[in-house]
Amino acid sequence: MTPFDALRRVPTATITTMLLKKGIRHCWMNGAMPLAAGYPRVVGAAFTLRFVPVREDLATPESWAKPISTRAAIEAMPEGCIAVADAMGVATAGIFGDILVMRMARRNVTALVTDGVIRDKVGVLAAKLPVWCQGTAAPASVNGLTFVGWNEPIACGGCAIFPDDVIVADDDGAVVIPKDLVDFVAAEGEEHERYESWVVSEVERGVPLPGLYPPNDDAKARYAAWKAKRS
Amino acid sequence: MTPFDALRRVPTATITTMLLKKGIRHCWMNGAMPLAAGYPRVVGAAFTLRFVPVREDLATPESWAKPISTRAAIEAMPEGCIAVADAMGVATAGIFGDILVMRMARRNVTALVTDGVIRDKVGVLAAKLPVWCQGTAAPASVNGLTFVGWNEPIACGGCAIFPDDVIVADDDGAVVIPKDLVDFVAAEGEEHERYESWVVSEVERGVPLPGLYPPNDDAKARYAAWKAKRS
Amino acid sequence: MTPFDALRRVPTATITTMLLKKGIRHCWMNGAMPLAAGYPRVVGAAFTLRFVPVREDLATPESWAKPISTRAAIEAMPEGCIAVADAMGVATAGIFGDILVMRMARRNVTALVTDGVIRDKVGVLAAKLPVWCQGTAAPASVNGLTFVGWNEPIACGGCAIFPDDVIVADDDGAVVIPKDLVDFVAAEGEEHERYESWVVSEVERGVPLPGLYPPNDDAKARYAAWKAKRS
Amino acid sequence: MTPFDALRRVPTATITTMLLKKGIRHCWMNGAMPLAAGYPRVVGAAFTLRFVPVREDLATPESWAKPISTRAAIEAMPEGCIAVADAMGVATAGIFGDILVMRMARRNVTALVTDGVIRDKVGVLAAKLPVWCQGTAAPASVNGLTFVGWNEPIACGGCAIFPDDVIVADDDGAVVIPKDLVDFVAAEGEEHERYESWVVSEVERGVPLPGLYPPNDDAKARYAAWKAKRS
Amino acid sequence: MTPFDALRRVPTATITTMLLKKGIRHCWMNGAMPLAAGYPRVVGAAFTLRFVPVREDLATPESWAKPISTRAAIEAMPEGCIAVADAMGVATAGIFGDILVMRMARRNVTALVTDGVIRDKVGVLAAKLPVWCQGTAAPASVNGLTFVGWNEPIACGGCAIFPDDVIVADDDGAVVIPKDLVDFVAAEGEEHERYESWVVSEVERGVPLPGLYPPNDDAKARYAAWKAKRS
Amino acid sequence: MTPFDALRRVPTATITTMLLKKGIRHCWMNGAMPLAAGYPRVVGAAFTLRFVPVREDLATPESWAKPISTRAAIEAMPEGCIAVADAMGVATAGIFGDILVMRMARRNVTALVTDGVIRDKVGVLAAKLPVWCQGTAAPASVNGLTFVGWNEPIACGGCAIFPDDVIVADDDGAVVIPKDLVDFVAAEGEEHERYESWVVSEVERGVPLPGLYPPNDDAKARYAAWKAKRS
Repeated sequence: MTPFDALRRVPTATITTMLLKKGIRHCWMNGAMPLAAGYPRVVGAAFTLRFVPVREDLATPESWAKPISTRAAIEAMPEGCIAVADAMGVATAGIFGDILVMRMARRNVTALVTDGVIRDKVGVLAAKLPVWCQGTAAPASVNGLTFVGWNEPIACGGCAIFPDDVIVADDDGAVVIPKDLVDFVAAEGEEHERYESWVVSEVERGVPLPGLYPPNDDAKARYAAWKAKRS
Repeated sequence: MTPFDALRRVPTATITTMLLKKGIRHCWMNGAMPLAAGYPRVVGAAFTLRFVPVREDLATPESWAKPISTRAAIEAMPEGCIAVADAMGVATAGIFGDILVMRMARRNVTALVTDGVIRDKVGVLAAKLPVWCQGTAAPASVNGLTFVGWNEPIACGGCAIFPDDVIVADDDGAVVIPKDLVDFVAAEGEEHERYESWVVSEVERGVPLPGLYPPNDDAKARYAAWKAKRS
Repeated sequence: MTPFDALRRVPTATITTMLLKKGIRHCWMNGAMPLAAGYPRVVGAAFTLRFVPVREDLATPESWAKPISTRAAIEAMPEGCIAVADAMGVATAGIFGDILVMRMARRNVTALVTDGVIRDKVGVLAAKLPVWCQGTAAPASVNGLTFVGWNEPIACGGCAIFPDDVIVADDDGAVVIPKDLVDFVAAEGEEHERYESWVVSEVERGVPLPGLYPPNDDAKARYAAWKAKRS
Repeated sequence: MTPFDALRRVPTATITTMLLKKGIRHCWMNGAMPLAAGYPRVVGAAFTLRFVPVREDLATPESWAKPISTRAAIEAMPEGCIAVADAMGVATAGIFGDILVMRMARRNVTALVTDGVIRDKVGVLAAKLPVWCQGTAAPASVNGLTFVGWNEPIACGGCAIFPDDVIVADDDGAVVIPKDLVDFVAAEGEEHERYESWVVSEVERGVPLPGLYPPNDDAKARYAAWKAKRS
Repeated sequence: MTPFDALRRVPTATITTMLLKKGIRHCWMNGAMPLAAGYPRVVGAAFTLRFVPVREDLATPESWAKPISTRAAIEAMPEGCIAVADAMGVATAGIFGDILVMRMARRNVTALVTDGVIRDKVGVLAAKLPVWCQGTAAPASVNGLTFVGWNEPIACGGCAIFPDDVIVADDDGAVVIPKDLVDFVAAEGEEHERYESWVVSEVERGVPLPGLYPPNDDAKARYAAWKAKRS
Repeated sequence: MTPFDALRRVPTATITTMLLKKGIRHCWMNGAMPLAAGYPRVVGAAFTLRFVPVREDLATPESWAKPISTRAAIEAMPEGCIAVADAMGVATAGIFGDILVMRMARRNVTALVTDGVIRDKVGVLAAKLPVWCQGTAAPASVNGLTFVGWNEPIACGGCAIFPDDVIVADDDGAVVIPKDLVDFVAAEGEEHERYESWVVSEVERGVPLPGLYPPNDDAKARYAAWKAKRS
């Protein structure tokens, strides 16, 4: 099983706890929440997009035909990537609308993650590309943002994202795993999930949490026994 | 077809792009989002309502019986209008509750739009008046706001709204069209929608966006041919 | 009927108006909204929890085994209480996840209310404990918060909450009733609800609001007659 | 001595405490602080100015020549008034610059108070008109604001200001006194100041605060004696 | 030399860098800046004060005479301590005014630090107690805050402060040192200051920063030589 | 006279008005204000610096020795440039301290402009490099920021800054002039200043503003006469 396959079974909540073991507290992107209910957990390498504030002479519908444009960026996205857009948290201009999202879906991009918002909500939902964002606004990106490039380090929701970091997103939001820590998080995350599933079964039979979660020696022994029996 | 009929077929996302052609970037009301899913797109002339912060000696339940009150304002609303309330973005006092909204529905007001919040959410939804707002709070308007008048210029969600400007609201939020630009937006918006529906069909068959959206000469020619065939 | 039974029939919107009669404007907790639709209205005595910002040497997974920990606090919660957590409005660290919420449900806690966020959203919903909060985040509380104690006065969503104040929460959010005012609010709230149900029937038959809500002498007489007939 | 003369000797801190006796908590304008050190305390009737957000077709340098303009408003200001401008707290567009402030000074306006900012700081200081504001920005009002009128009720820094309310401003900021409460505040404020000056003398000789401020019976008696001796 | 004496010579900027070596990033209190220029650097054990939001029935001038009051807290402050007040960042109600600050000065309190604001600015400055705060407001604490106790863990400006942590404040603001790390910070801080004074002399003679700050082997050797010569 | 020489005589307030003639409203950097009083107006080509949020494994004191570091960036700054740093408005980590600013001064950099804050305030002031920023914080950049590069397009205070745009800063803050508009702004700005100096003389002799500023035909004629006489 690849690390990406493993990560598809590890909730983002658990990933943040694994990263905290390595001293990393800034890994969950503030504002990037699922646009719709029911998305599967997604995993992919980050393909970054960067916006700066609107400059009225540059951020125009005409800019959409330039070599450095959101259109060109989409054509550069590799299959399976997760596009992560730094919109500086701007909530009044939709970075992408239905047509761009349709094209991304067509190119087999895995998901779109941003600390900004999208537009054409109905059409974006119809395009079936999973989106994590802050919400919806009617105006186009050029109303408030100037697109400046792709595959650079970016900020997104209070996190630093570097190209090829790994993104995981689910109902609790979107997290970034530095690429050197992907194997660690995948391995530790799986074991942590196993442990938590045992804890859940203990809570269901009425065991109080102190001594159980985190475990004291007795709980550790009972967990070890349970785990041995399962394998 | 009247301009209002035309606008009912033009998404707010498109309207903002048409207004940008006229240099207008402040037209989408920040914070005014649909209270429930599934509202139709609404169009109507703005009937404005204005609040200032609470003054404890004035903002009392007793004030509701005064000549300048939200009750009196509702009786002044013409059929078909869209009430737009400047709540200064205050999210802790509901400007209207179920009873006031029921009365507005009864008077055939088209919709309520505000950068503030409503209260009695269950009752407001039951009243069937479409509402665009920032959310819900339990306290009444007098908890945080003083009502001062109607049919004056107001601020709403970062936009200037003048009486008789035209409001359009849908899933992407609510926009204001200055009344002198209504015909322009209705006409341009329809053509833009036609063009985007052709673009969607192109994207569906795998055409990349650069050269298509916005169109280069080849795309323009293909679009012209498609359009000619349709009419 | 106990005051708690009465309060279960009084909307939070009405409670805030009754408290305003006593000069209390700070009673609705900003940011504490239902995590899911369809919760019943809940009523319970406040059991408070207090967090301060993260101190990296203290806010660690190891801290979860300490005597002053969220785990120990849960074991101290009496049946039927409503746990109210002061998370200082922090939206980037989930104060509780699925396992803690499961344990609270198991202990027959009535609800959890916070100005912060929860994590493990899917699991929290599955645990069936009603939750009022600001939203969801993946990181654990120790990512951004240090737990310091329970049953102390706290801040929550701009309100002061003292242990044994009474909490009521419904679709419009969560309110706090100072314990000395519970009887007053329960009694006045019931009468107010009766009056509003008559107003609704009047609005349904087309009566305008001025003179009706608030009532002039004629409306008062008609209401008295209606009330007499009902009893 | 007129109430205005009395108020010139009552600090804004004391005025807020007097207003609290009448249940008024919203009287200090958030964001309106002295632009320079050393202004005298100022007192005057409010002359209100109102801005809404920029509409690009209206908020232009050309608008400065219209009948409803900041220029026309200044000519309508009576001698001795305090101009209070509702800038919705916008900090990125200076409502007035040096030339407008010079003209206000020339017309014997007492002061300018706003929750927004001014521009041309050096020139504004040179014009010698005392200004309470949030700071300074280079852009003109039309960069972010549309002027819509004067002598209407406004919001300023979280307070409601009605024309002819009385404004007092000093080093602690600017407060509004509802016009019906001016006599009360002036009278009570003077007595409160007298009492605090006695408290200061007590603290200077080492008396602890409990029992002194607020006074117990003993302290009340000592104060009465001190006051009798002084008069 | 005591650690406190040593810390009086270590800038807060350096202290934050020493704490980062121990993994502590949350140690500088956001919003707590010097009220006046020219204060000496202050060092003292934290004496904490805690406020929650206003509850109108509790936060009244009458509350000032209660056993749990700011007045009583001041009488409990030991000589030399630094009072640190959690005002939840509220900027619209001054936690202390001139009289309370005078009493603190009289009791030989070293300084007052808060993420809120003070009132009676002129009088507070006259009292000569150094104050780090967010600014000034005219209203009293009871206008927006309820005082609930002292010597408890608190939040202040995004930091956790525990009683007996050590506070250092200077022109760059106020920092908290966990009490177990005071000796470490004092010792490392002194050496770091020595090193930086050498770096300054290098920069003055035109040495570029790469290789110097942080030092490469050559720079380390030169610094060692300089240090040896000095001692 | 070069355009830069001309711009040294044009206030930033006037520059924003000239840019508005070209439809540019986003040119004044929110948050970048003079650190000290009395700086001369500065003009220079923008040298951009870019930060993203802290990633704990990258933003460490060790990072200061890497090839992409603030140290290396300073060595790349050309004489006379104005360094503009995108700190994403973060106010809790000082991007530069005294030593880095000393080195910039030594390299004859004209000024530092940022939407963030500096540290070591006393030392920065002593270094005599003019600084426009949001304020001061004790922690180093690595406490909250990761440096990622220089001479890229950046955001600063809500503006887009491209390398070689021209920056002008004075008491009203800092503005960016797109490089293609520098000649226009310099020429128009000078004439505008001349006109305003005449307006000031008119206001001084008591002329009302309507008809004067902006000028009607009569005022235009009088200004033309005044101008003719001067040259």
